[in-house]
Amino acid sequence: MTRIRQLIARFPQYKIDAFLVTNDVNIRYLTDFPASESWLLVSPSRSFYLTDFRYILEAKKGLKGINIKRYTKSLQLSAFEAAQDLKVKRVGFDDRHISLSSFKQLKKKCPKGIQLIPVKNCVEDLREIKSIDEISQIRKALSLHRQAYELIKKEVKTGVTEKEIFNILENFLKSKNAGFSFPPIIASGPNSCFPHARVTDRKIRSNEPVLIDMGIDVNGYKSDLTRMILLGKIPHFVREAHDFVRRAQALAIEHIQPERRASEIDRQARNYLTKNRLGKFFGHSLGHGVGLEIHENPRIAPLNTTILKEGMIFTIEPAVYIPNKFGIRIEDMVLVTQQGCEVLSGDIY
Amino acid sequence: MTRIRQLIARFPQYKIDAFLVTNDVNIRYLTDFPASESWLLVSPSRSFYLTDFRYILEAKKGLKGINIKRYTKSLQLSAFEAAQDLKVKRVGFDDRHISLSSFKQLKKKCPKGIQLIPVKNCVEDLREIKSIDEISQIRKALSLHRQAYELIKKEVKTGVTEKEIFNILENFLKSKNAGFSFPPIIASGPNSCFPHARVTDRKIRSNEPVLIDMGIDVNGYKSDLTRMILLGKIPHFVREAHDFVRRAQALAIEHIQPERRASEIDRQARNYLTKNRLGKFFGHSLGHGVGLEIHENPRIAPLNTTILKEGMIFTIEPAVYIPNKFGIRIEDMVLVTQQGCEVLSGDIY
Repeated sequence: MTRIRQLIARFPQYKIDAFLVTNDVNIRYLTDFPASESWLLVSPSRSFYLTDFRYILEAKKGLKGINIKRYTKSLQLSAFEAAQDLKVKRVGFDDRHISLSSFKQLKKKCPKGIQLIPVKNCVEDLREIKSIDEISQIRKALSLHRQAYELIKKEVKTGVTEKEIFNILENFLKSKNAGFSFPPIIASGPNSCFPHARVTDRKIRSNEPVLIDMGIDVNGYKSDLTRMILLGKIPHFVREAHDFVRRAQALAIEHIQPERRASEIDRQARNYLTKNRLGKFFGHSLGHGVGLEIHENPRIAPLNTTILKEGMIFTIEPAVYIPNKFGIRIEDMVLVTQQGCEVLSGDIY
Repeated sequence: MTRIRQLIARFPQYKIDAFLVTNDVNIRYLTDFPASESWLLVSPSRSFYLTDFRYILEAKKGLKGINIKRYTKSLQLSAFEAAQDLKVKRVGFDDRHISLSSFKQLKKKCPKGIQLIPVKNCVEDLREIKSIDEISQIRKALSLHRQAYELIKKEVKTGVTEKEIFNILENFLKSKNAGFSFPPIIASGPNSCFPHARVTDRKIRSNEPVLIDMGIDVNGYKSDLTRMILLGKIPHFVREAHDFVRRAQALAIEHIQPERRASEIDRQARNYLTKNRLGKFFGHSLGHGVGLEIHENPRIAPLNTTILKEGMIFTIEPAVYIPNKFGIRIEDMVLVTQQGCEVLSGDIY
């Protein structure tokens, strides 16, 4: 319930007296309850969890200190019934987490005296700064990630298929009661030039790079790392690209500290690659937050002005993709500390 | 491309000259290309696939006969550039598949002379009627489902945990290169009263019902069935509820034929359960379409006036849930035929 109180503490700055949470992950974050097709109306006096027949019994068991309201006609109608019950007038909501169609119904059902206020990142701003407990959860995922990587890096060799590596990984995670946080990328040779390659039956050959981008999910919290395995005699230009990417990453990481902007961090890596004529092969942003979602705030991107704060966790993943030839990406996860940052995945290589 | 032509054939009835597809599954249906954060603008002269850096190479390889356009600033801007290129004026879109926030940006970027027309089910109406090929795909999923069920029904016995059954299922699917279409429900005894129970470490006991609701995904097409396994001496009232649910299902299935409304089918089962004082324990709708999505049109629900057509595939799943005691659900998949329907899962028991 601490998180709900933190959310309520933000109401004055948005001039709202209630907030309608319509996003599953945000509801999970606030209540620890895994929601689906349910909404949460938060107000300083009480909060209502709006759900239907299917989840009502579990919600009553799992949600303490929150009123459970079963909706029969529609979430929209039910939300306003709760709002009238609470006598709230200015109800915030996030317009990225509601479809245009659902919003139209909401507007239609909105009773006189209640105003809908679009508000962005009301919950996401809280999620951006990880608690001690969340950092531990992510460390747990990384610890399993380390074991998984130790296991497969021995298996990546000439003649083994990408799919076989995938199977080893999958079995390992299963034995640990964990899962992937996204379909892993195991991309050998030219396959590595696709930023989002799918696992194929291609046999790994000697003298080529293998890109392994994977994430592990432990109780909802995630890891996300990319490692390059360079087998045999790697052509000079591939090795060179690899070293430039690694240097770009180091420059970005060195620059991380509280009060700097996300865009400045992105710029360190991007400028360095551009100076070395690789900028045009680096088409995505430098990194993204990781937590309950594999991609969340803060985005470390050229135009993102977010100011870094202690407790943020995000990836730093510069890359170059040479079309139809090869790709190099190196991705680590960092935790912003008081003075700079800790590379959480620094001991996985 | 046949499906894109079928979509274009629907433009006159909506008075549109282009359609902006913003939903991943609909794009996959129309193009066979697995999309993510990409849009498709369809027009009679040409179609544009709008994607970013990450997917551009794969899109160029995988999408034949469609212009590939890379967006750098935003999907919204890129969509209008394509629309101006095509000289289209009335662009349809589905307001359920765009967030309010994304729609606001779309409206802001909309050039003079172009009108955005909200249109519902433009692609979903096509997806509702399965092609020969899609029916084969679903039969494949069901054939694997049959094998999986044969395997586990022998394993469901006193002392075995729900989780152990789950593991057997998961390993089997893995060995067949297939996956679940949703997290399966294996709910023993009182756990079965939760319509969406999660798998627990509970040991199955004698004299209790076990509910198994699972779905298998083969190349995107899905199965979805629920079976009850009644172990040992089942209490009379549980057996009775089971027989009522089975009879309710039979009544609904007998009533299925082209030109009848979905609501009429729902009513057959619901009225029967109500007459037998079980109606209030059946809180969800009777069924739903299954295809590329596990829940799609048509919905077989009390207020759904969809007219059944040959080639539709949906579930029929009446149920009763007695709070904190037990639940009974029996779910099969049917294909609407010229005269009535075929129970596609009739030989799985």
